[in-house]
Amino acid sequence: MVKQLQPKSHQIAILAEGSFGILESKTATVLVRYLPDNVVAVIDSDNVGRDVSEVIEIGEGIPVVRDLAEAMRFNPTMLAIGIAPPGGELPSAWRAILHEAIQNRLHIMSGLHQFLSEDTELSEMAEANDVILWDARKPPPDLPVATCKAADVDATVILTVGSDCRVGKMLSGIEVTQATRARGVNAEFCPTGQNGIMVWGWGIAIDAVVSDFTAGAAEEIVLEGAKNHDLLIVEGQGSLVHPGYSGVTLSLLHGSLPDAMIFCHQPSRDTVARYTVPLPSVPEMIAQYEAMAAPIKPAKVIGLALNCFDLSDAEAREAVRHAETETGLPATDVVRFGADKLVDAVQKVHAER
Amino acid sequence: MVKQLQPKSHQIAILAEGSFGILESKTATVLVRYLPDNVVAVIDSDNVGRDVSEVIEIGEGIPVVRDLAEAMRFNPTMLAIGIAPPGGELPSAWRAILHEAIQNRLHIMSGLHQFLSEDTELSEMAEANDVILWDARKPPPDLPVATCKAADVDATVILTVGSDCRVGKMLSGIEVTQATRARGVNAEFCPTGQNGIMVWGWGIAIDAVVSDFTAGAAEEIVLEGAKNHDLLIVEGQGSLVHPGYSGVTLSLLHGSLPDAMIFCHQPSRDTVARYTVPLPSVPEMIAQYEAMAAPIKPAKVIGLALNCFDLSDAEAREAVRHAETETGLPATDVVRFGADKLVDAVQKVHAER
Repeated sequence: MVKQLQPKSHQIAILAEGSFGILESKTATVLVRYLPDNVVAVIDSDNVGRDVSEVIEIGEGIPVVRDLAEAMRFNPTMLAIGIAPPGGELPSAWRAILHEAIQNRLHIMSGLHQFLSEDTELSEMAEANDVILWDARKPPPDLPVATCKAADVDATVILTVGSDCRVGKMLSGIEVTQATRARGVNAEFCPTGQNGIMVWGWGIAIDAVVSDFTAGAAEEIVLEGAKNHDLLIVEGQGSLVHPGYSGVTLSLLHGSLPDAMIFCHQPSRDTVARYTVPLPSVPEMIAQYEAMAAPIKPAKVIGLALNCFDLSDAEAREAVRHAETETGLPATDVVRFGADKLVDAVQKVHAER
Repeated sequence: MVKQLQPKSHQIAILAEGSFGILESKTATVLVRYLPDNVVAVIDSDNVGRDVSEVIEIGEGIPVVRDLAEAMRFNPTMLAIGIAPPGGELPSAWRAILHEAIQNRLHIMSGLHQFLSEDTELSEMAEANDVILWDARKPPPDLPVATCKAADVDATVILTVGSDCRVGKMLSGIEVTQATRARGVNAEFCPTGQNGIMVWGWGIAIDAVVSDFTAGAAEEIVLEGAKNHDLLIVEGQGSLVHPGYSGVTLSLLHGSLPDAMIFCHQPSRDTVARYTVPLPSVPEMIAQYEAMAAPIKPAKVIGLALNCFDLSDAEAREAVRHAETETGLPATDVVRFGADKLVDAVQKVHAER
């Protein structure tokens, strides 16, 4: 289980050079959203001099700076790689920036597929400067093949699932966890991807695990979370209709064996992003998740988290109303309308268990 | 794509010490079945002095020998690791045998999860003795995320799927390929697991691929096979209802994007092997595969390959008849009754495309 650095005890400079505010800098946005008191600066010369909130609507008071030298004025203790490009490789121009960061004694937090800790040059330099290269994606060794142990934990397990990548499975998982905690439930978020891990400080990036052991990794996450918590919200990944990642999604479902699921969707999206595959209807996708859970451990979808970022308030309200009518389930946009409806549904499952 | 050694051009001694004839020695059995002219001896002191056919009913004329020293009398050029234990680690007692084999200038062919080529001691010894340590499970570097390219190949693509592991997805794939070739079709078997790769000399062990790229690996296999062949039979893996491996199965389905599927099943099995998960009915499992294929590329199950190894001839005939009635599809046990019915179904898909 990844537990090397606790981001919440660091001052973080985020490297997002040339990419801040676009899709590839999801990591940067997530860190700003959930660690606003820890992020001291974002590096992106394209947006230098602006406030972070002018670029991504959150993070007021955090400056965008030109380069690492300027970021050092804000006394960071860690540099976070703020992008997650397809393929996951380190942009070659950033190597010099990492050198500079390490020489400035900053720990490095990375969610890239390419592991910095396995780069001889960087790791020698890190050792010489007594800093940690933390690869949040790097899975622990010796993961097991899943054996349905997650079905036996005392905790109630909720999995966020969805229609596609980047529809809000992590974000709604965190929001529901925090709102459930606010009601006094001993709830825990269980991260399964690099961004969640970087925010929450533990978890396994299951899409970086060898496929024979991917469900086993999901099982381990649930067993770990259940040690000290009564209710777990497991971060979903991908989609059952995603041509590249559907296997990750199914491994997560069959490894975590949830009691119930929250379905995440972006109402304006009608094909799988970056593919021409049309999305089935929301009721069809919900039925598919329930059908795939059923043979091993039945689980129902109990609510919908809609990502309405590209809709007006009126359109978002209409999307929520439409989804509720179409499915007979509670729906919300957790960012715009809060997570209460979903927490109600989660608490009902928890109480009935 | 794995293409390091061509087993068909070697004299093979199989190491199955203490395990020959039991489930863990599936690799040994597969090599004897499909490379009978290449296997010169099987090493297992528990069965020493017997003919291979006395232990596993095939491989007449191949001796079981006490140890490697005795196997060397049959002039092997390669030692094949004949077991696939859960976890995939090299039994520690076998290390000395590998030392002896390398010193005798035998190449080593292994399907273990633990890669021999990454073992410093063994690889230094192999280099000094000018032999190859071939890890059939080791995936090639730089696999892509799947992008539906397999849907565009000119070749007809057939995928074997199934109710569970070890029900005959590889075996029926090879049998159908060979029988289709015998009818003059330019068909190719596309191995996706270590045993198929060891027999056929190419392929990718998709369960050893990091899960983000597992469907991409399946796509690569189809693109490679389609370069020089008109019809591909892709080896299936796992099952959609297998708690540990379902993600591998779905990745393979969405990466290979078949035109049709052959469903493999052992009629006497009613739970997932090593689990307490009950298997759904055969029509339910077939419907599930078709439902999971549909959103990306619709594909029907066109026939059933039943593994009746534990049934009498009369019971096997009854199982075939029952399956045909239950599903309305042609069924056979390819070992006992031949693959003709399935080849008919495959050729029909090929002709209609």
